[in-house]
Amino acid sequence: MNWRAKLLKLDGLMPHVSDTNALEWGTLADCAEDAELVFLGLDTDESGGTKPCFAAVPAVGDASPRMANPRLWAVMATLSPDDLAIYGGARSVVDWHARHRFCAACGGSTELAKGGWQRNCTNCGAQHFPRTDPVTIMLVEHDDKLLLGRGLGWPEKAYSALAGFVEPGESIEEAVAREVLEESGITAREVHYIASQPWPFPSQLMMGCTAIAEDTEITLDETELADARWFTRDEVQAAMSGDADAPMNTPPKQAIAHHLLQWWLDKGK
Amino acid sequence: MNWRAKLLKLDGLMPHVSDTNALEWGTLADCAEDAELVFLGLDTDESGGTKPCFAAVPAVGDASPRMANPRLWAVMATLSPDDLAIYGGARSVVDWHARHRFCAACGGSTELAKGGWQRNCTNCGAQHFPRTDPVTIMLVEHDDKLLLGRGLGWPEKAYSALAGFVEPGESIEEAVAREVLEESGITAREVHYIASQPWPFPSQLMMGCTAIAEDTEITLDETELADARWFTRDEVQAAMSGDADAPMNTPPKQAIAHHLLQWWLDKGK
Ligand SMILES: [Zn+2]
Ligand SMILES: [Zn+2]
Repeated sequence: MNWRAKLLKLDGLMPHVSDTNALEWGTLADCAEDAELVFLGLDTDESGGTKPCFAAVPAVGDASPRMANPRLWAVMATLSPDDLAIYGGARSVVDWHARHRFCAACGGSTELAKGGWQRNCTNCGAQHFPRTDPVTIMLVEHDDKLLLGRGLGWPEKAYSALAGFVEPGESIEEAVAREVLEESGITAREVHYIASQPWPFPSQLMMGCTAIAEDTEITLDETELADARWFTRDEVQAAMSGDADAPMNTPPKQAIAHHLLQWWLDKGK
Repeated sequence: MNWRAKLLKLDGLMPHVSDTNALEWGTLADCAEDAELVFLGLDTDESGGTKPCFAAVPAVGDASPRMANPRLWAVMATLSPDDLAIYGGARSVVDWHARHRFCAACGGSTELAKGGWQRNCTNCGAQHFPRTDPVTIMLVEHDDKLLLGRGLGWPEKAYSALAGFVEPGESIEEAVAREVLEESGITAREVHYIASQPWPFPSQLMMGCTAIAEDTEITLDETELADARWFTRDEVQAAMSGDADAPMNTPPKQAIAHHLLQWWLDKGK
């Protein structure tokens, strides 16, 4: 038992957060003797000393791993960027472990290896690695208007950039054009990468792009979207300023879609 | 049985290639009644008719999925870009199916669903999706020199751009800086995305970037690389021109590393 080590305090996958909205840490004495531990990295304190940081794999993973949990999302919105990065990375990996206790190749039991960045099959020896799913999210422009969509079940005024997983065999640029065509019927060209951001539901790499629309006639994929429409610069600006009369509400500050919309407004100035 | 449908001819995971270096196609009569079929898309012939295209999941997946098979790679090098894209995407998905016949959550049997773009657990109902692993590959520059590395077991003069998987919780830009620091001890800044390309061993999304090195002193990670060194523009130019006296051999034409090196040479003109 390493008494200098720090253990990220989790209740299942929920973080413990202090009165000052900081992640809480305990010691390895706080977890079961046989807990599976993931090494998160070294923490350097003010005197230059380092402490190894761990998180324990919970008994049960996320039951709906592709859905952002609203209660958790509200807690995450209060964290500092550093704490958000630590929690997001830790959550993605421990949730992956909790949902990968068996070998997809043979059905045998797997066990944690390499400090928690691998699982090995105890039956066939196959090695399994935490997964990160690349997702494209894109601002599609036409004549200084933006194409934004409202997901199924989203609130009435909630619009955001279209998004979708990169499929095997595609480049980022091909994935953007395919997603835009599938979801909206719009042909997109001149795809450019802007910025990326991890998103821990369950472990996505969001890659923000822009593209130019060749046409404006929307054919909605109703299995994916409740609505899609074109928004003017003034409408996006009003929404980003928090204007209650704006025809849309913007995505939360921490989401890459928010940064992309701000980037687009700034670019047009 | 749809007699109009086309079936990609595979011997395990190897493609059948014609005398004119084209992928060969058969019909659904060529595979077993109970074969698991992945829908690849619609093929439009010269008269405008469309045929659904499929590939069958082989009995056994790739035993070393993260290694590029040299014999296969030689065959792939002869394919047209269109055929290479079809084969690469098909191979990634059918290999994923062959290696995911069991549920990682409970160990139960899984079965193919949604035309081969999903597997469902017959025991716990968990849904599983083909995976694509985001990988960064980067040209690190300093004073018009490039940092390139030679992997463990590579031929003596084979140098290429450093590369590594994006880990959960990282952006592309953070992954580039971490990989460069881990593999070479070099601090990299000003990371910029250049281009992306799929790579089917087993299913990677290669994302090419550039970065500026803050220093030139290399501290090699000997568990990852056999060597890393700085190459001048003239040395890279000689290698890309096929000069036998060049101090390095370049990556194959189809690899994104080749495109990145050419991009760097063109940019400096
Ligand atoms: Zn196994
Ligand atoms: Zn299951």
